Amino acid sequence: MEDRRSILETFPNPHPGRDYVIEHKVQEFTSLCPITGQPDFARMVIRYVAAGKCVELKSLKMYLQSFRNEGIFYEDVTNLILNDLVSACSPKWMSVRSIWSVRGGIRSVVTAEHGNRPQPLSS
Amino acid sequence: MEDRRSILETFPNPHPGRDYVIEHKVQEFTSLCPITGQPDFARMVIRYVAAGKCVELKSLKMYLQSFRNEGIFYEDVTNLILNDLVSACSPKWMSVRSIWSVRGGIRSVVTAEHGNRPQPLSS
Amino acid sequence: MEDRRSILETFPNPHPGRDYVIEHKVQEFTSLCPITGQPDFARMVIRYVAAGKCVELKSLKMYLQSFRNEGIFYEDVTNLILNDLVSACSPKWMSVRSIWSVRGGIRSVVTAEHGNRPQPLSS
Amino acid sequence: MEDRRSILETFPNPHPGRDYVIEHKVQEFTSLCPITGQPDFARMVIRYVAAGKCVELKSLKMYLQSFRNEGIFYEDVTNLILNDLVSACSPKWMSVRSIWSVRGGIRSVVTAEHGNRPQPLSS
Amino acid sequence: MEDRRSILETFPNPHPGRDYVIEHKVQEFTSLCPITGQPDFARMVIRYVAAGKCVELKSLKMYLQSFRNEGIFYEDVTNLILNDLVSACSPKWMSVRSIWSVRGGIRSVVTAEHGNRPQPLSS
Amino acid sequence: MEDRRSILETFPNPHPGRDYVIEHKVQEFTSLCPITGQPDFARMVIRYVAAGKCVELKSLKMYLQSFRNEGIFYEDVTNLILNDLVSACSPKWMSVRSIWSVRGGIRSVVTAEHGNRPQPLSS
Amino acid sequence: MEDRRSILETFPNPHPGRDYVIEHKVQEFTSLCPITGQPDFARMVIRYVAAGKCVELKSLKMYLQSFRNEGIFYEDVTNLILNDLVSACSPKWMSVRSIWSVRGGIRSVVTAEHGNRPQPLSS
Amino acid sequence: MEDRRSILETFPNPHPGRDYVIEHKVQEFTSLCPITGQPDFARMVIRYVAAGKCVELKSLKMYLQSFRNEGIFYEDVTNLILNDLVSACSPKWMSVRSIWSVRGGIRSVVTAEHGNRPQPLSS
Amino acid sequence: MEDRRSILETFPNPHPGRDYVIEHKVQEFTSLCPITGQPDFARMVIRYVAAGKCVELKSLKMYLQSFRNEGIFYEDVTNLILNDLVSACSPKWMSVRSIWSVRGGIRSVVTAEHGNRPQPLSS
Amino acid sequence: MEDRRSILETFPNPHPGRDYVIEHKVQEFTSLCPITGQPDFARMVIRYVAAGKCVELKSLKMYLQSFRNEGIFYEDVTNLILNDLVSACSPKWMSVRSIWSVRGGIRSVVTAEHGNRPQPLSS
Repeated sequence: MEDRRSILETFPNPHPGRDYVIEHKVQEFTSLCPITGQPDFARMVIRYVAAGKCVELKSLKMYLQSFRNEGIFYEDVTNLILNDLVSACSPKWMSVRSIWSVRGGIRSVVTAEHGNRPQPLSS
Repeated sequence: MEDRRSILETFPNPHPGRDYVIEHKVQEFTSLCPITGQPDFARMVIRYVAAGKCVELKSLKMYLQSFRNEGIFYEDVTNLILNDLVSACSPKWMSVRSIWSVRGGIRSVVTAEHGNRPQPLSS
Repeated sequence: MEDRRSILETFPNPHPGRDYVIEHKVQEFTSLCPITGQPDFARMVIRYVAAGKCVELKSLKMYLQSFRNEGIFYEDVTNLILNDLVSACSPKWMSVRSIWSVRGGIRSVVTAEHGNRPQPLSS
Repeated sequence: MEDRRSILETFPNPHPGRDYVIEHKVQEFTSLCPITGQPDFARMVIRYVAAGKCVELKSLKMYLQSFRNEGIFYEDVTNLILNDLVSACSPKWMSVRSIWSVRGGIRSVVTAEHGNRPQPLSS
Repeated sequence: MEDRRSILETFPNPHPGRDYVIEHKVQEFTSLCPITGQPDFARMVIRYVAAGKCVELKSLKMYLQSFRNEGIFYEDVTNLILNDLVSACSPKWMSVRSIWSVRGGIRSVVTAEHGNRPQPLSS
Repeated sequence: MEDRRSILETFPNPHPGRDYVIEHKVQEFTSLCPITGQPDFARMVIRYVAAGKCVELKSLKMYLQSFRNEGIFYEDVTNLILNDLVSACSPKWMSVRSIWSVRGGIRSVVTAEHGNRPQPLSS
Repeated sequence: MEDRRSILETFPNPHPGRDYVIEHKVQEFTSLCPITGQPDFARMVIRYVAAGKCVELKSLKMYLQSFRNEGIFYEDVTNLILNDLVSACSPKWMSVRSIWSVRGGIRSVVTAEHGNRPQPLSS
Repeated sequence: MEDRRSILETFPNPHPGRDYVIEHKVQEFTSLCPITGQPDFARMVIRYVAAGKCVELKSLKMYLQSFRNEGIFYEDVTNLILNDLVSACSPKWMSVRSIWSVRGGIRSVVTAEHGNRPQPLSS
Repeated sequence: MEDRRSILETFPNPHPGRDYVIEHKVQEFTSLCPITGQPDFARMVIRYVAAGKCVELKSLKMYLQSFRNEGIFYEDVTNLILNDLVSACSPKWMSVRSIWSVRGGIRSVVTAEHGNRPQPLSS
Repeated sequence: MEDRRSILETFPNPHPGRDYVIEHKVQEFTSLCPITGQPDFARMVIRYVAAGKCVELKSLKMYLQSFRNEGIFYEDVTNLILNDLVSACSPKWMSVRSIWSVRGGIRSVVTAEHGNRPQPLSS
């Protein structure tokens, strides 16, 4: 896990004096089911209010690709990504939402948050 | 009813230190009308914040299939499923919403909740 | 009016110990314009938190059909239906929304509520 | 039936030298089920290539409203309306399509045509 | 199978002098997978040009419900329904399309036809 | 301006004992750009909680048509209509939203409100 | 009418050696009902294969605005615009479609064509 | 390649006496860009008219998963899949369409066909 | 930067006595990636409550076009535009949201706000 | 122009023995109005059946970007791109469609084709 986290890069927040919301909608996440080994597919929505550092986009893409051939549960990977991103850029607030493809007629969504969203900020 | 509840299985919440939301959208629920015996069809949306246990997906599917040939009212089955799931995994908060096919030109939706949703959690 | 109200039937709330939301979306309401006698068409959305009684669906359909050949204004019929339903089942909270077909390039919506929605209940 | 047909009025085709397509999409048709007496609801799509006469819109609306309290089958009313309109304006080609509300989980559509559509005419 | 076919009822085509298209979109078909016993769900679209007989709607609903607890393959049930309906009403042309719920990330559609669609008939 | 305001007519609120929301969505508003004289097009959404008087629909349509050949800015006409309607029916709360056609690749929306929306009223 | 037609300007087809399709979708057409004087609103879709001349866009806009305060029937204005455009640019093929706002619950569409569409041209 | 093709399994066409269309829409295909090694994502639509053999669904899923970590061009993989499926079940007609995720602001679609679609078959 | 800001023009708020919301949705923003020099595309949503001055629309369009050939990061340009607009019209409240085209399978959205939105104002 | 065309690169058609359709939907085309100098925006849809050569995607992107700061008419640029692509890869059939942003309330679409589409190929 140490290795994967090192993929993430950051750059200095260009407007640190203002709380503002950055959102990255990842259309193409895939990992494996830890039980059957079958592929899982998801969209990921990452939203945060930066403190001093922003997540660099290309490194975010590479980081997420590192799960491509790894077996991991929905609930686990969502929280793990949140933990790794928080660790990388220490945001004031961050949320990660994963929206999974239908399996057995069921579509699952997992949403985890770190910190409190600064007020006032429009949704 | 004892029997049906025993179908549900759980696994330990992999991130118990954080309140986060898990959602399962079931596209394919069917039961029978208790009066006419005709089939009813619904989508079910289950959302919860786990405490120590998460609902295992495959057992959730099997549990919901157990209503396939049972006659039961909209209001009743929605609350019953909520009761059984709460009993199985003792969540901090849970809601069950059933969205039924049109009958007589009327589409019905029933939404029941258990506990208070932890704050702060984005919707 | 006494006659129309008598069409509505109720059944005992199967889960009176919990506040939960019941919604009936009626796709096919029609009445007449009280001035021109021309047909009006609307969708009706009825939402409530039951106390001891729930509205029986088939009687609700018959009750709403009783307006088919009656001349009545948008604002009036919406409040009237709310009054009749409240009278029939004494809910903790109820709202009736009517969404009308375009007339003269204008689409009208009327929303009336009875009582306060119990807290906490997710929307 | 003689009576209903007399509601339809026509006006002279203002451009009889060209074959062109006129379409009227009626959003709000309602009649009764001949067996149960329950209301049926439909959208009607009327398309035609006029010869010497066009259907006057307001009279078309009144004509269709005349079915409001009449019991009649889907297949029958669709062909009947086609017959009456053909009789009123003798078009080169005409089609009538009725799209009905869901009944018993089934949505029905009936499409009847009179004459051959002139060629070449884009769809 | 003899039994199931006897559920279907017909009524005389009210406008046998004209070729016209009747469509029934069934929103709520369910059967079982013949291998796993798991429920399958589909929408069914039935279209035909009647000769002397039309399919009665309520009997069609009951006929389709007879597959609820039967194990049968997608390709098989689609052709079987077409065969039974053709046998019941001897149409000039008929097609049956089944659109299945996602299984293993794959959505299947099977379309079978009997006879040639009469010309000219708009789509 | 005195003239235009006189077009608006009202009728007594049929249910003055209850705060409820009336909405009129006007699909077809048009005025002129005060600088270029070119036509502008908008949808208008008017929402209010009546006190003693409701706005009569046909007079509302005629009132809005009176802007057809008048040059006026987006921000101005939105507030002007709000002022005139408030003056005509003295509502407890009212909002007017204008949604304009794209000009120079930009779609503008202006929303003005009068008074505070009574609590509790569902949105 | 002579006057209106003179508004239309053309420019030389920059690729006269190839048959290709030009389409202009006009979102904001308005004229008046010749009977009631009430405003009518439409979208207009103009498609053509140019011969030597193309229609200049700004002059097309001005030409269509010239109907703003004129009373004219749906069928008439559609054919009239086709005639004027054909007269202005002598295309190999042209069609004009007008799609009108709902009036009395009916949405009308009129489609007129001039000449035969050159083959082969994909739709 | 010999290996991959051996994954595909077939079953006997249950209705060989009739030409009918089978469609499988695969929502979750992924392979690698042969130049950059970056993941590509696509939806695949496979349609065919079987002769004696049908493609077994689970084996189709496994076959398509075998491209998960292989570098291959859009045009190549689409034709390759068509070749392999034709080789496996010798259909009367088959088409394979791949619809790719946006890359560099461009969405690509490749469609290849084998044989002629039997006539008459509705689309 | 001094130069760009001078493009923005304002006009006096025609209704300074009321807090109301003005929104401009810009469909066609483009700038360059500061690293690769490749074009970026975005929609921009600007919302504000004016104090004494409103932003003039044509100058807003010209101001935004000034970024067409400039290399600048998503987070930076969003905050920069907010700063420039605030500087030009000193609003009571303003937000700028930029919604970017997909890059590497990721769609980014950046939302920055200045001041507190006046209460009460409906969303 | 010689320069621009040299940007386009090709690669050998990997399956020259089969006629199949390749489609590239370009979401982000921009050029300038040759009269006003204002930016124009379009989506471009390029479809072709290759002979010996396919268009390389990255070079296609660079080629289209070369119009970013060039003034050119809708009809002209569409045919020009078709000419350049045909010149680069000599396809059996090719079409180019440009779909432009709204200008003056009008959305324009231009579609040009080269050669005849090989038969039989499904659309």
